[in-house]
Amino acid sequence: MRSKVRVILWGLGAMGSGIARMLLSKKGFTITRVLEIDPTKVGKRLYEVLEMEPTADNQTVISNKPEKIIKKNAAEIAIISTSSLVKQVFPLIKMIVNAGIHVITTAEEMAYPKAANPDLTAEMDSLAKTNNVTILGTGINPGFIMDYLVIALTGVCEEITSLKISRINNLAPFGKKVMKEQGIGLKPEEFYKKVKDRTIEGHVGFLQSFGMFEEALQIKLNNIEQKKEPIVTNVPRTTKLVSVKPGEVAGCKQQGFGYKNDHLFIKMEHPQQINPEAENIETGDYILFEGVPNITLQIKPEIPGGIGTIALCVNMIPHVLNASPGLKTMLDLPVPRAILGDVRELIIK
Amino acid sequence: MRSKVRVILWGLGAMGSGIARMLLSKKGFTITRVLEIDPTKVGKRLYEVLEMEPTADNQTVISNKPEKIIKKNAAEIAIISTSSLVKQVFPLIKMIVNAGIHVITTAEEMAYPKAANPDLTAEMDSLAKTNNVTILGTGINPGFIMDYLVIALTGVCEEITSLKISRINNLAPFGKKVMKEQGIGLKPEEFYKKVKDRTIEGHVGFLQSFGMFEEALQIKLNNIEQKKEPIVTNVPRTTKLVSVKPGEVAGCKQQGFGYKNDHLFIKMEHPQQINPEAENIETGDYILFEGVPNITLQIKPEIPGGIGTIALCVNMIPHVLNASPGLKTMLDLPVPRAILGDVRELIIK
Repeated sequence: MRSKVRVILWGLGAMGSGIARMLLSKKGFTITRVLEIDPTKVGKRLYEVLEMEPTADNQTVISNKPEKIIKKNAAEIAIISTSSLVKQVFPLIKMIVNAGIHVITTAEEMAYPKAANPDLTAEMDSLAKTNNVTILGTGINPGFIMDYLVIALTGVCEEITSLKISRINNLAPFGKKVMKEQGIGLKPEEFYKKVKDRTIEGHVGFLQSFGMFEEALQIKLNNIEQKKEPIVTNVPRTTKLVSVKPGEVAGCKQQGFGYKNDHLFIKMEHPQQINPEAENIETGDYILFEGVPNITLQIKPEIPGGIGTIALCVNMIPHVLNASPGLKTMLDLPVPRAILGDVRELIIK
Repeated sequence: MRSKVRVILWGLGAMGSGIARMLLSKKGFTITRVLEIDPTKVGKRLYEVLEMEPTADNQTVISNKPEKIIKKNAAEIAIISTSSLVKQVFPLIKMIVNAGIHVITTAEEMAYPKAANPDLTAEMDSLAKTNNVTILGTGINPGFIMDYLVIALTGVCEEITSLKISRINNLAPFGKKVMKEQGIGLKPEEFYKKVKDRTIEGHVGFLQSFGMFEEALQIKLNNIEQKKEPIVTNVPRTTKLVSVKPGEVAGCKQQGFGYKNDHLFIKMEHPQQINPEAENIETGDYILFEGVPNITLQIKPEIPGGIGTIALCVNMIPHVLNASPGLKTMLDLPVPRAILGDVRELIIK
């Protein structure tokens, strides 16, 4: 059998650590290097930070010096989980690809990078082809729940009149960064102000999902609108990190509207809040098709975002290694699938 | 733009007619020839049988002479919807492939032909490669609901302990052939006898779905069991075609059990009956994962089998035309998607 798949992790936050743990739980992977800027992690061995027993595959010392790590033959694939935007991960991707190493990234905009940065997308595709490697952005959303899964279901349709997609989730398990990005604990007027000056990010992904729909379904959306509104709680809501009083913001209700020939064709709703159960709101993923046939799908509770993103990044590794060179999206590759055996048996190249 | 995609239909029953109508409703297809054995259709023009207005794309005269129709350059792709088994469609596929024409078929066993006929599968793959064409079997089930969709969802999982998949549907809209295959109207003892002498077919597909799971998830099921039991009605159930009295068979409850290391890993349930609502049974597709994470999905009502199979056969045409030569399954090709624009824009070869 071929030797283990050698992986570099760039970023060891919540996603990177989860990816590390999953890789180390599977047969056929070894983590050769880890890059991370957090000074509490740099210089430690990977197994120490993960609080695991040492093995042959988790010994690497965490570094903050990409130029020392990203070299030819340092690994077969690198997984970047540092940030959300194409322009933020582009320099990292360029460095990795120039070393002849494949890339998967959790960066939300990279799920369909053309939507935000068509020029950088073309450049990455060309770089990947020159260096004979493959680049993929994936994750639960964008990348799966509100786009890929919906597109797969369009495959059983003769006609589609409209699509409505909702993802209602609970932010309570997430960290301080997410709480801040979603405006948790603000007064409604502060929330609106921060939406205006763009210090509340909300969900990064609707433009990418719309882009995937346009490509997959050969449609042109002549207008795309997005709305971010505060979810103002009527009851106290408390998590480990925050306490929100009635009248304060418990989350961000983001909506996206894609119009085809001036008719609303795709509606996306993604209210993200802490403890929705406090007001009897059930979390879940909901997909509604009007067309031939009508389809009403629900997943209750919602597929958890953290696990889903971690799993997709790892499970897509064989597809990326098997793919032709270039920048790919989930639309280009075979259906994702869990790795239950030795990953090496899935690699045909 | 390239000229229209030329399609031959082999079989113009319920599926073939539906495929014809869907092709003719889309931009970029033309039906060049139709093969059918039903003497009430042979010799008529396609538009007459479909009761449509004549156009440039539906004029062909229906023939029962394959040797006159299946010739080099007669079409780019042929869609076979004549029967369920690999051994039944193999001679048809061979003839088409030898003429350099791609094939899609509704034959259930062709969704994963290796499960029933590994030797013919190898032969078809080799024939396809020699003739530089692609062969695909697809349909709602096997091909999508109880396998492909489930496999796609495994992509968001770190681990899977067990899978349970149910499809509860209503047979009332189907024809006499289906009623007979499912044993509708029999006494339970007659049903059991016909299961034993194999004159009740039930659902053809569990072995194919299990085969897809084994390949996709790299698992070996050490034991596969199937059960067919009568659904005995407690109330009268009546359709246009049949009337079933209390104590008689209103359908066939088929179950499949796939064991991994002697533990039940995949359970499939597919009770097919007329008018389940007569006993307050709700139709639907249900998927239940135990693993990391757990997933509970439902589609209510179920995705209709006829439309779903028709749509998949048509929607997969661009993927088949774009694929590398050989015998493919749904696992090998990019995600299916509805054709809402001109199909020619989806063809990159």
